[in-house]
Amino acid sequence: MSLVIVGSLAFDTIQTPWGRREKIVGGSCTYCSLAASFFTAPKIVGVVGKDFPPDVIEFFQSKNIDTEGLEIKPGKTFHWEGHYGHDPNQRETIKTEMNVFENFRPELPASYRTADIVFLANIDPDLQEDILSQVSHPALVAMDTINYWIANKPDSLWRVLRKVNIFFANEEEIKMLTQEANLIKAGKRVLASGPKLVVTKKGEHGALVFGKNFVFGMLALPCEDVVDPTGAGDSFAGGFLGYLDKVGSLSRKDIRKAAVYGSVLASFAIEDFGFERFKTLTNQEIGARFRHFKKLVAF
Amino acid sequence: MSLVIVGSLAFDTIQTPWGRREKIVGGSCTYCSLAASFFTAPKIVGVVGKDFPPDVIEFFQSKNIDTEGLEIKPGKTFHWEGHYGHDPNQRETIKTEMNVFENFRPELPASYRTADIVFLANIDPDLQEDILSQVSHPALVAMDTINYWIANKPDSLWRVLRKVNIFFANEEEIKMLTQEANLIKAGKRVLASGPKLVVTKKGEHGALVFGKNFVFGMLALPCEDVVDPTGAGDSFAGGFLGYLDKVGSLSRKDIRKAAVYGSVLASFAIEDFGFERFKTLTNQEIGARFRHFKKLVAF
Repeated sequence: MSLVIVGSLAFDTIQTPWGRREKIVGGSCTYCSLAASFFTAPKIVGVVGKDFPPDVIEFFQSKNIDTEGLEIKPGKTFHWEGHYGHDPNQRETIKTEMNVFENFRPELPASYRTADIVFLANIDPDLQEDILSQVSHPALVAMDTINYWIANKPDSLWRVLRKVNIFFANEEEIKMLTQEANLIKAGKRVLASGPKLVVTKKGEHGALVFGKNFVFGMLALPCEDVVDPTGAGDSFAGGFLGYLDKVGSLSRKDIRKAAVYGSVLASFAIEDFGFERFKTLTNQEIGARFRHFKKLVAF
Repeated sequence: MSLVIVGSLAFDTIQTPWGRREKIVGGSCTYCSLAASFFTAPKIVGVVGKDFPPDVIEFFQSKNIDTEGLEIKPGKTFHWEGHYGHDPNQRETIKTEMNVFENFRPELPASYRTADIVFLANIDPDLQEDILSQVSHPALVAMDTINYWIANKPDSLWRVLRKVNIFFANEEEIKMLTQEANLIKAGKRVLASGPKLVVTKKGEHGALVFGKNFVFGMLALPCEDVVDPTGAGDSFAGGFLGYLDKVGSLSRKDIRKAAVYGSVLASFAIEDFGFERFKTLTNQEIGARFRHFKKLVAF
């Protein structure tokens, strides 16, 4: 199978109760592809400026991430600054500098156009739709979004939603999108519009996966030290889709396991700033934590 | 085994997005003992006024609840009025009329003083300590509390905590009590003060049970229609302790099952106003929902 991931590569300036980091590499595509790389060889689509560190691109390649779809443009890389307080589910955006990301209009490389799985991370829904039209017959399309697009391009968003199979969203976003106060009702509203699965991420409270006549719930790993929550959701999607790409199955059993692998990867991502933890993470550690999750909820 | 439950019996005036009910019977002791009655024959300790409906007491008795410790005093029954919005975890107290509950100083009947399990629901911690001193050698003592006592009698509360084995608290309460923003750290702080187990209830997000080198997490059943969240936490404690009293075991396996039975009973309690749902609930339905919980989290 093959997995194409479209999203942002960024410099993040992050402040959490654990400290501050200036312009470390982040972005939805970064977290998602690194998380997926523990299961498969993802192909990434994104844009960075000339200031993006070449050794990070080399690191991606060393993790079997295909960077053919990564454009390096004159100018500066997208920069986001955000602060987190003691509740890791709450974040405040201090600054967003779009830079080269402003005019991101990717043309997929030929080898990407036959992808089996496509993940459209948080970008303009019109762009998500355009990129999707460049892939011939994907077996599975997943998307994510953020409040900004829900508020500013709801029609475009609902139109893309009708073309995807899996919608990832956090609890607040899906409630905002559907204007439903109850999470299950919100999930059903989205299911009725097209997607076969809705994955609602609840941060430290875990995640719920809804399908027609199907619901799977999982806890987040109880964590004392959330060093940096940035990228948890994208790491979740990466682990989820990376696992599905590896096993080439969409059985309910594999959907459940995919969601747990998503949680496992997210639980590692938050242990350190940026993608630092993914540099040393091993498949053995992933397996051990998967078993830990199993033990946590067994009765 | 035998289980003594000490707490409030009340008239509750409740408004939720589903409607309004004036002065229906509620109170921690009511919910907890009814939930426990599906597993064992609990003995209750509480006080009501002359206005308390005799048919409710008869209903308790029909559920094998021992009401010898229930005092009927001249005056009015405790009355609480509260409103819930669309988030069932958030409630607003409109009015509290203590009435006969104001001078509640129970003397346990002789047959209660040899109880194996004692549950001290939310009442003045000094009173919890006094009642506890009336039981000779309980195998297990559990307690609950609310923000009011944390704010107004923290020293008394910490003193009782040192004498109990299980502390039930919701997430907000335990963070307030320990002044820890992280739930796991908060749990550890309480464990260090005496209790062997800390059960943190997170409403629609489930519950976490902490012990030394032990953690068990469970989801709440995804629920579209939370008709009335009142009593969910007390029903959780009732299912939890009722099951432990029935099996007479404190093995980790049974702690896990007890917590799931707690969630099961809470999931029924919120389906209707007051304890209405417990009137028709059957053991068969409880068994079916237990299996449903298992399926929800299996992977």
